[in-house]
Amino acid sequence: MEPRLSQEVIKTAAEHDGPIETDAVIVGAGPVGLFQVFELGLLEIKAHVIDSLAYPGGQPIELYPDKPIYDIPAIPVCTGKELTDALLKQIEPFGATFHLGQTVSVLERQDDGRFFVQTSKGTQFLTKTIFIAAGVGAFEPRTLKVDGLDKFEGSQLFYRVRNPSDFAGKNLVIVGGGDSALDWTLNFAAEGPNKAESVILIHRRDGFKAAPASVARMRELCEQYEMQFIVGQVTGYEEKDGRLTGAKVTGSDGVTRVVPLDMLLVFFGLSPKLGPIADWGLDIERKQLVVDTEKFSTSIPGIFAVGDINTYPGKKKLILSGFHECALAAFGAAPIIFPEKGKIHLQYTTTSPKLHKVLGVETPVFD
Amino acid sequence: MEPRLSQEVIKTAAEHDGPIETDAVIVGAGPVGLFQVFELGLLEIKAHVIDSLAYPGGQPIELYPDKPIYDIPAIPVCTGKELTDALLKQIEPFGATFHLGQTVSVLERQDDGRFFVQTSKGTQFLTKTIFIAAGVGAFEPRTLKVDGLDKFEGSQLFYRVRNPSDFAGKNLVIVGGGDSALDWTLNFAAEGPNKAESVILIHRRDGFKAAPASVARMRELCEQYEMQFIVGQVTGYEEKDGRLTGAKVTGSDGVTRVVPLDMLLVFFGLSPKLGPIADWGLDIERKQLVVDTEKFSTSIPGIFAVGDINTYPGKKKLILSGFHECALAAFGAAPIIFPEKGKIHLQYTTTSPKLHKVLGVETPVFD
Repeated sequence: MEPRLSQEVIKTAAEHDGPIETDAVIVGAGPVGLFQVFELGLLEIKAHVIDSLAYPGGQPIELYPDKPIYDIPAIPVCTGKELTDALLKQIEPFGATFHLGQTVSVLERQDDGRFFVQTSKGTQFLTKTIFIAAGVGAFEPRTLKVDGLDKFEGSQLFYRVRNPSDFAGKNLVIVGGGDSALDWTLNFAAEGPNKAESVILIHRRDGFKAAPASVARMRELCEQYEMQFIVGQVTGYEEKDGRLTGAKVTGSDGVTRVVPLDMLLVFFGLSPKLGPIADWGLDIERKQLVVDTEKFSTSIPGIFAVGDINTYPGKKKLILSGFHECALAAFGAAPIIFPEKGKIHLQYTTTSPKLHKVLGVETPVFD
Repeated sequence: MEPRLSQEVIKTAAEHDGPIETDAVIVGAGPVGLFQVFELGLLEIKAHVIDSLAYPGGQPIELYPDKPIYDIPAIPVCTGKELTDALLKQIEPFGATFHLGQTVSVLERQDDGRFFVQTSKGTQFLTKTIFIAAGVGAFEPRTLKVDGLDKFEGSQLFYRVRNPSDFAGKNLVIVGGGDSALDWTLNFAAEGPNKAESVILIHRRDGFKAAPASVARMRELCEQYEMQFIVGQVTGYEEKDGRLTGAKVTGSDGVTRVVPLDMLLVFFGLSPKLGPIADWGLDIERKQLVVDTEKFSTSIPGIFAVGDINTYPGKKKLILSGFHECALAAFGAAPIIFPEKGKIHLQYTTTSPKLHKVLGVETPVFD
């Protein structure tokens, strides 16, 4: 899947020796994670943002980029993409650094009170505060549930295509009915640099979520004997000498056939996983992080949780609630980051020359 | 002052026999009061909105209609007027009724658990719930602080002009340096149906907040001996037989002169007053209403407080926090309004056909 947002507005991390020392790490680049950048920025706190997806925007971008949202206050209607673009524009003055396509794999408290954070790509941080804005968790590919099959993952079973040339000239079985499944089917079945030896598409029904044009093209290729489409589900597999040799496919007629293959590609979409956050020793209630409503602090001081991932009496999983939580969490974090400053007073973006400087805008003249 | 927003979008109350029976009365038509209409509307609760100003919008419209606001989430910049217009558009589907230019003067709990509410204009309600979104209070004219002068208010001392013809042919002293002071000065000093016998403008300094064109016109009228302008402050008054006869004006030279008059008009702008809300028996802490953070209920069940008027641990007076409070208050109120419905579940505006019906929009087709 292509990043859906211009990379221009996103500052990504350069290679780095040793851990990045910072005041704040935000886990999650959904709308609430992005607005956390803003609220920290107003208090002159710079942030690094980590997200499992290759682009910012989180659930609204992943699940409904083009569907209308009606309950963002003072925005009568916007799509997930418009919401994300507006937030990226709003946080531009604060120069947050994004670390995308990675999840947090290690979190450890240091003797000096800071947190050591390491991502799945090996990026390391030493940070004074952490803001978990991970929503329903990191989006990961839904897997094919067939006992024992997972041992082939990465060698013959794939949930993403990193390097299309790895699949050129091979006998491929592709499973799924969405855009990813159809796009890769067309890519490997049609003439081109990565044309496979053979392509068989398997989907549980003869109806597709994918774009109608892609489906029509796939049917054309079937008529031209360039590929096959089978209605059915993968219910087992065959192997020989430790190699995956075939998928057992049960059709709608109840009959199971073996489909030989070199590589099995599965595209069942993404599903969220709380992942290692569950193991950080934070108070958890029904998979949500328990926070107070004064600072939205978790049970570990210095770690805050905002947005859909937290819970407290009255909690509603609304983006607009996440925005409020970001503001109070930023004020809750400031004394940890600036212990010398004392109480941080609220200033208004309309009237504060200091905030105008931070935002990079001119102060209007008041009488 | 003219209403600054199109009256078309605002449904105002018609004459009504006896109290209006309703589910919800919102006190305050600032951004948070307006968004309370939205959050109640999503739960199919119709609201009546009361505000002391003649137009919706509250503080941002009254204090900075044209100044930029930067911290409304996903709106990188907007003016107070743009914020208000966007919220009015967003709440259009819910047909709230506005009762403007009036404050709540009576609040009484009835035996059936409902509240009787009466405004300064005599509008009466019987309501199941009340949402106080009164911000810093009702905006009222700032008064001239001279001991004993207030006894002339309404007869010879005025803070607003309701009927300009009352002042025609009179000897007027007008005090103030803003647009209202200058506009009325020009209105009464220049040729026209309401021309006064004489007009003396008094302002504490020879510099004005009012529009430069108005100030230039005023100076022209002074040069033409159509009026006078005196730099000074009203520090006392003279009376005879119970009638106000003159204002004592202390100039920048420290000398006090008596300026004779029939009518004294003072335009010092508006300032907010908590007003009778302070006497409703609600828990109050430093002029703020104490609420919980689960439902934003005050100490009286059925009365909620949202936005700048409430307080709780961590409270920041941010519009975006008020939006969150509205959402939770609406869910807190629903069981009082619909006791038979049981727990109200959160639905999403992006995916809920029920909410699409309420919003009057089409449900997009999902696979």
